Amino acid sequence: MDKKELLRNVQLGKLSVEEAAEKLTGFNELGYAKIDTQRKERNGFPEIIYGEGKNLEQIIGIVTVLKEEQKPILATRISSEKGRALQDTFPDGSYFELARCFVLQPVQPDSETYIAIVTAGTSDVPVAEEAAVTAETFGNQVKRIYDVGVAGIHRLFARLEEIQQASVVIVIAGMEGALVSVVGGLVDVPVIAVPTSIGYGSNFQGMTALLGMLNSCSSGVSVVNIDNGFGAAYSASMINQLRRKK
Amino acid sequence: MDKKELLRNVQLGKLSVEEAAEKLTGFNELGYAKIDTQRKERNGFPEIIYGEGKNLEQIIGIVTVLKEEQKPILATRISSEKGRALQDTFPDGSYFELARCFVLQPVQPDSETYIAIVTAGTSDVPVAEEAAVTAETFGNQVKRIYDVGVAGIHRLFARLEEIQQASVVIVIAGMEGALVSVVGGLVDVPVIAVPTSIGYGSNFQGMTALLGMLNSCSSGVSVVNIDNGFGAAYSASMINQLRRKK
Amino acid sequence: MDKKELLRNVQLGKLSVEEAAEKLTGFNELGYAKIDTQRKERNGFPEIIYGEGKNLEQIIGIVTVLKEEQKPILATRISSEKGRALQDTFPDGSYFELARCFVLQPVQPDSETYIAIVTAGTSDVPVAEEAAVTAETFGNQVKRIYDVGVAGIHRLFARLEEIQQASVVIVIAGMEGALVSVVGGLVDVPVIAVPTSIGYGSNFQGMTALLGMLNSCSSGVSVVNIDNGFGAAYSASMINQLRRKK
Amino acid sequence: MDKKELLRNVQLGKLSVEEAAEKLTGFNELGYAKIDTQRKERNGFPEIIYGEGKNLEQIIGIVTVLKEEQKPILATRISSEKGRALQDTFPDGSYFELARCFVLQPVQPDSETYIAIVTAGTSDVPVAEEAAVTAETFGNQVKRIYDVGVAGIHRLFARLEEIQQASVVIVIAGMEGALVSVVGGLVDVPVIAVPTSIGYGSNFQGMTALLGMLNSCSSGVSVVNIDNGFGAAYSASMINQLRRKK
Amino acid sequence: MDKKELLRNVQLGKLSVEEAAEKLTGFNELGYAKIDTQRKERNGFPEIIYGEGKNLEQIIGIVTVLKEEQKPILATRISSEKGRALQDTFPDGSYFELARCFVLQPVQPDSETYIAIVTAGTSDVPVAEEAAVTAETFGNQVKRIYDVGVAGIHRLFARLEEIQQASVVIVIAGMEGALVSVVGGLVDVPVIAVPTSIGYGSNFQGMTALLGMLNSCSSGVSVVNIDNGFGAAYSASMINQLRRKK
Amino acid sequence: MDKKELLRNVQLGKLSVEEAAEKLTGFNELGYAKIDTQRKERNGFPEIIYGEGKNLEQIIGIVTVLKEEQKPILATRISSEKGRALQDTFPDGSYFELARCFVLQPVQPDSETYIAIVTAGTSDVPVAEEAAVTAETFGNQVKRIYDVGVAGIHRLFARLEEIQQASVVIVIAGMEGALVSVVGGLVDVPVIAVPTSIGYGSNFQGMTALLGMLNSCSSGVSVVNIDNGFGAAYSASMINQLRRKK
Amino acid sequence: MDKKELLRNVQLGKLSVEEAAEKLTGFNELGYAKIDTQRKERNGFPEIIYGEGKNLEQIIGIVTVLKEEQKPILATRISSEKGRALQDTFPDGSYFELARCFVLQPVQPDSETYIAIVTAGTSDVPVAEEAAVTAETFGNQVKRIYDVGVAGIHRLFARLEEIQQASVVIVIAGMEGALVSVVGGLVDVPVIAVPTSIGYGSNFQGMTALLGMLNSCSSGVSVVNIDNGFGAAYSASMINQLRRKK
Amino acid sequence: MDKKELLRNVQLGKLSVEEAAEKLTGFNELGYAKIDTQRKERNGFPEIIYGEGKNLEQIIGIVTVLKEEQKPILATRISSEKGRALQDTFPDGSYFELARCFVLQPVQPDSETYIAIVTAGTSDVPVAEEAAVTAETFGNQVKRIYDVGVAGIHRLFARLEEIQQASVVIVIAGMEGALVSVVGGLVDVPVIAVPTSIGYGSNFQGMTALLGMLNSCSSGVSVVNIDNGFGAAYSASMINQLRRKK
Repeated sequence: MDKKELLRNVQLGKLSVEEAAEKLTGFNELGYAKIDTQRKERNGFPEIIYGEGKNLEQIIGIVTVLKEEQKPILATRISSEKGRALQDTFPDGSYFELARCFVLQPVQPDSETYIAIVTAGTSDVPVAEEAAVTAETFGNQVKRIYDVGVAGIHRLFARLEEIQQASVVIVIAGMEGALVSVVGGLVDVPVIAVPTSIGYGSNFQGMTALLGMLNSCSSGVSVVNIDNGFGAAYSASMINQLRRKK
Repeated sequence: MDKKELLRNVQLGKLSVEEAAEKLTGFNELGYAKIDTQRKERNGFPEIIYGEGKNLEQIIGIVTVLKEEQKPILATRISSEKGRALQDTFPDGSYFELARCFVLQPVQPDSETYIAIVTAGTSDVPVAEEAAVTAETFGNQVKRIYDVGVAGIHRLFARLEEIQQASVVIVIAGMEGALVSVVGGLVDVPVIAVPTSIGYGSNFQGMTALLGMLNSCSSGVSVVNIDNGFGAAYSASMINQLRRKK
Repeated sequence: MDKKELLRNVQLGKLSVEEAAEKLTGFNELGYAKIDTQRKERNGFPEIIYGEGKNLEQIIGIVTVLKEEQKPILATRISSEKGRALQDTFPDGSYFELARCFVLQPVQPDSETYIAIVTAGTSDVPVAEEAAVTAETFGNQVKRIYDVGVAGIHRLFARLEEIQQASVVIVIAGMEGALVSVVGGLVDVPVIAVPTSIGYGSNFQGMTALLGMLNSCSSGVSVVNIDNGFGAAYSASMINQLRRKK
Repeated sequence: MDKKELLRNVQLGKLSVEEAAEKLTGFNELGYAKIDTQRKERNGFPEIIYGEGKNLEQIIGIVTVLKEEQKPILATRISSEKGRALQDTFPDGSYFELARCFVLQPVQPDSETYIAIVTAGTSDVPVAEEAAVTAETFGNQVKRIYDVGVAGIHRLFARLEEIQQASVVIVIAGMEGALVSVVGGLVDVPVIAVPTSIGYGSNFQGMTALLGMLNSCSSGVSVVNIDNGFGAAYSASMINQLRRKK
Repeated sequence: MDKKELLRNVQLGKLSVEEAAEKLTGFNELGYAKIDTQRKERNGFPEIIYGEGKNLEQIIGIVTVLKEEQKPILATRISSEKGRALQDTFPDGSYFELARCFVLQPVQPDSETYIAIVTAGTSDVPVAEEAAVTAETFGNQVKRIYDVGVAGIHRLFARLEEIQQASVVIVIAGMEGALVSVVGGLVDVPVIAVPTSIGYGSNFQGMTALLGMLNSCSSGVSVVNIDNGFGAAYSASMINQLRRKK
Repeated sequence: MDKKELLRNVQLGKLSVEEAAEKLTGFNELGYAKIDTQRKERNGFPEIIYGEGKNLEQIIGIVTVLKEEQKPILATRISSEKGRALQDTFPDGSYFELARCFVLQPVQPDSETYIAIVTAGTSDVPVAEEAAVTAETFGNQVKRIYDVGVAGIHRLFARLEEIQQASVVIVIAGMEGALVSVVGGLVDVPVIAVPTSIGYGSNFQGMTALLGMLNSCSSGVSVVNIDNGFGAAYSASMINQLRRKK
Repeated sequence: MDKKELLRNVQLGKLSVEEAAEKLTGFNELGYAKIDTQRKERNGFPEIIYGEGKNLEQIIGIVTVLKEEQKPILATRISSEKGRALQDTFPDGSYFELARCFVLQPVQPDSETYIAIVTAGTSDVPVAEEAAVTAETFGNQVKRIYDVGVAGIHRLFARLEEIQQASVVIVIAGMEGALVSVVGGLVDVPVIAVPTSIGYGSNFQGMTALLGMLNSCSSGVSVVNIDNGFGAAYSASMINQLRRKK
Repeated sequence: MDKKELLRNVQLGKLSVEEAAEKLTGFNELGYAKIDTQRKERNGFPEIIYGEGKNLEQIIGIVTVLKEEQKPILATRISSEKGRALQDTFPDGSYFELARCFVLQPVQPDSETYIAIVTAGTSDVPVAEEAAVTAETFGNQVKRIYDVGVAGIHRLFARLEEIQQASVVIVIAGMEGALVSVVGGLVDVPVIAVPTSIGYGSNFQGMTALLGMLNSCSSGVSVVNIDNGFGAAYSASMINQLRRKK
């Protein structure tokens, strides 16, 4: 279909042979990067820009390419400074300070089902916001339930019903990550656990929480990399939208 | 509802006060274990019996309690010897040698959607079978796609369409676990990765595969513990059944 | 006092100069070991026999020396085979199979206060029994509360009051060890956490539980070595008896 | 009692229904945090403010809430700059530079029993001071015995009697942490060991001291996280006050 | 031969005895370093200057010695600042900013065979450029194929033929390093894998990629240290020139 | 070509459509495995049978398939028992006890160039023999130079010339692996290092040798997994035959 | 000298040219090993036979070669079974069961100075005996001071004078290894520390003791590999004999 | 003796009772430190000042106390800034920039025997200088042999004789630390190995060199902590002076 349309455009002279050949490779060669223009077709979401280790010009270059494709754009791990510059360059985009994300052309949210994002403490909130902004950019509704760690477990029970009615629950915790097992034992939907690098001493930058979550005594828990709010939301979005699929 | 029925049975003299009190605690005290009789209500699936470190009498005791509750029963990590003894004791149950699982009263499978279970090599098959039996016991249809690791990537492409049409994909691999990233880049449904302890030297009993999967360059991947076929299938089943929920 | 009595016995000819000199060194030289005969005076409890890596003759030799001193005797990590042999040699002693302990001349228990010993699962029971036998040998009353892990947290709440009224709580858990943080958040007495080597894959023989417990988000938790039920009970006994001290 | 008083206040019109409902949840919702207002009832001590990763406004907000509850307030890991700002905002509070703690409304100390805080070296003193300020805020008397490491063991013997007469001993050491085992062999009260991140090379930021302490050949030792002076004092305070309980 | 010429020069009085003795030792003593002047004879390439941890004067001193020997000179890990200073001092040299290399007197490239340098992502390019500049300095032709990671595997297939026709392939990747196994399964020449420190969380500064590559399920892969573009190119150059040897 | 021949055979009725379709997939489906029948075309060598974790029937099944293709067959990690059974089943094959390899239809060796295989100690010989048999099966000439570790470095110098004249050198060492750096400093051809699991204590089953080799101060060294003699020989064979390619 | 004598023997026809050439290489080629016959000249002691991983015939072969050289022979890590076989073959040798060593032609001990070998516990004795037999074989006098660990530090003080008057002290300990630091703080001669694999849980087969010893707060301590009694004694012997050198 | 003289001084009224009591404790109480004034008697050398983590006033305070005792003073890990300030305060002291040491009242060197200090590379020189200054302060003669790593092993052979004639050899190396094994195989005196944190990637701040040295295939090697030049020189000085003892 896409390919046929492309070929018709060549036939009609709307597209040069060179441009068409480029499009058929499935990526856009920028020299410093090959932007994957088929990702939305294959993965449901377009290529995401991971901001760490890319300079402002590179990010602007990639956003410009993706913008033309009329797709939702998400750039993560964007510093305040770069965020402001992106907003200046693309005035219809939004920069989320706490989440460190830049968003353009987000998908309209669907109101029936939602993703619950739960944190153990206040310090886990930035990772939670990266997850929340990612999920919202991909068209999901989100409920934020923050600072309900097990040291004061009644705080969790006060919000339990909301968590139980989500399509999927993202639990974000540092230190020993015990909240994941408690939540996992109380819900009948998938739990995606995000260890954070919050803690000190033998926490080892989140390794302790990561190992704890992988060894959770509750079933139905799967785990993503340390501080990877984006990755958790990406999987959660796939799960939440599966519900709408059929 | 459940509780009201129980109270009515007390009122009618069908249930003694002692039995009712026991039931209201939500667990069944066996001395060596407290069997969680509310797990199906909370988690969608009843308590699973993890066979490692339990002796035959304990397993039979727990199965007996669960059997009365008319729920699907799954016991994992069951040796051949114990498996045969269980089959003798519960003749309507089935022991799966390769998967090392004992099953009784499985849920009838639903035929519309399915879970794809993909392995990199032949040695990953036992873990894959634990996942497959778990998923089937919980009423899911399963497609097995084994030995399609990236050293001969054309084997994967030959089966790609089947993988892409699953509700959720479980990828099982040892060594460096690269298959996960390749599959993750080619599907638009959630991928649950299971590292296996297959390999030698600096493989560290699956640690290398685990770390590789957590750091996958493909989005939409979440990870369970090493060799944890059961855990992957549990999450996958929750995801697959979410699709049917609404 | 002790020393004066000894010197008087020398004076009275009841004790030879050689024997007295030996006693004054504060240890009993067996060649393969120097038994610390002053430990009860210094530490409140006499020297304990760690059975691993000692042969039967050595253990019998050490028990014989300690028996003469009329002190409570505890030998830990004693295999069934050695246990039976010890019971044959010292018929007034008791061998505890599950705890793998041999006990002789235990202290009479004190009934007012008690130590609560709580486990997450059935597989943690052997470590719990080592703790329980140790605590009882040293004259403490013990309450055993087993298999109340967070995957079914209502089981914990059913026994919470008993836990809260203990002098000190020992929490024993493998896998991710989350039970420690939940209990720690619900009691106002010290919690001693014992990680167990129960689990598989990235559990690393208890390392995951150990790290989780050290990083517990609940205050008032301190930790002993993996599977060290004895050590936890030793500290707990000191704490419990401190209460009686004044 | 607390709840009855609250209800009476509602009856008397002293408290609005909204405020009462809030209080009954057991926490105070600040958006960025849910302050646990029942912790003193459950744990004996109110919620502590861990300063790392919280900004000044958040800390002031939490202190303000806790202050109203008339409870002792302790904020740990407070930088000099934040400490001075807190002292400006709450002039009746005290900032302890070396301990990096801010204290308000401390409990009056009890003079009969005391906690001994022992360090191996001069560099361990900041962790020791965090422990000392914590213990004093909670109403304990403290004896500081610093720089008595085993390289010059006569320094320890010179202060031994004072250590032996404490209710509980906190031993703080970096490098190999050998002091813990020596002290543990010489006292009949519980020892809480705090590894510090003092050292270099294969010290691994305190991991070596942590492992050494967990493997101490002396009984009666339990361990907290690296540099966790606060946690050790919290447990020690529970132990010391247990003595006063009866 | 070399030695004979040297001795003849002594005979002819062209070389003092002291200078000749120095040359016969096979190194040039600079006090802070002993420059190995026989390396080209032994290893095929002269001593390389590793810039990290050497100051500008030391680097200039070593370059000066090597320059006299008329050999190709390569200094790696050279900061921009030092690079500019070197270019000022040696105007016929070239500083490569991205590769962080300074080159003088490079070998003329040979055009028949080439080394393919392949990266998974944009962030791996600096390591790739260190490899490319090294290979070119030693007289090899290089093909750069960047950003063809497995998340969009069609980008790799678009360039596959070029990779397959190289003498040797260097594959550079961070995160999980899966590209190495995919390339290894598609070529019949040696693959040298370079893990990079690109990634976060449980990536551990490249350790995950390193372990993944060492455990690759594809044969024909060998591995160098993390970020060691130079080392990979050195081996690749030896392999490529072996082809020309006979 | 291959494909054309296949199609011609279909045309001529020599091959059924089903068989042809199977062949075109590029693998042979055995249920428990998908044998990669295109590997020789892609990688220069056919699929190798890794014996660990495969039972005798599976190995015989795979050998039977490969045998029909008239290709060299190598099965590694074959126990004595399986080795003897294979020799009984395939009488024209050879089982190498020390190398634990079974070989059938080896390639005729080429006499001009050779691979040097060097070990540090006597205990490294089994890994060396796996390398040697692999290299010989693939048609390479091998020189074995065993037990020349640096504790007696004159033994290495006695054989140095032979090592220097190889096309490629495989160095195999356990313990600290220092031999690799010494050899690397003395040759102008690529060195492939194989760490072995020989050693004890902090050797960590070869991890120390692996890390040492990755950090070698000599250039031109690349490394394979611990005890991976096969992998080293595979890479070395590719390098050695590259020399013959042109 | 040695070489001259050899050449004279050739001149006199006492030695064939072949034998002489062999001797000049400095090693004895056995196929499976190259025995270093110059080690005594270079290192002060002849080549030691490390028994692990060598079969009986190999050990007998090497002993036979060394025996002809009239040098002291030490074989370590010799099982009881091999030990008895060696004693049958070489009736003038001695097998030490506990030390697992076989000795032939030991050096006569020197009585003036001695090496002190100190252990923390009973379980460390086998490692201590390996050290003691090694030291005695090399002609040193040894004092054994066993089971003086810091849990009962008065046992150490009872033997302190003997330790202080040694030329060099070997301290052997498992668990946390604290004894090393205490001894190191009390003597003015070098201390060689041997960590043992005694302990459990987070002891990690001696890694905890190893790290503790490397980070000892006492100066003058150096460390050998885990359980390496032989290595400690080798260094200690060099130090003790240095004293006699002048 | 010392004590008698002290008591006589009290008798003569030269020393007050308070001062004498203080001196008899064996340490000097400074509040922030207890300076061990008996260390020279016990350990042969007085207490050393480890500068890291101590401020200038503390260092000056400790130097002032030690200066009065007329003993050699060594402060290590002293930054340039502190070094200059110390030199201003104590004009007869010397600050060694490269070694980062401050020295006062060094012992006169003894000229007969010497310590050889050998480094693998130029970057290891600062650690070597810390060792050299320490050894010289304690009255030893030192030979510096720098940059003789195994990548150019002829540089080592050029200086071998000097190394072989030392009383004890300190070998300092980063990366893989192979130089230690080569030197250990060529000398008949003790070798003390110092791993340095020089390297990158999988070097792990010296851990690779440390493990390599502990697993050296050469006997007679013992190891100190990473970058611990001081510790190596302390042990070496004890060994060197043992030679002079008798």
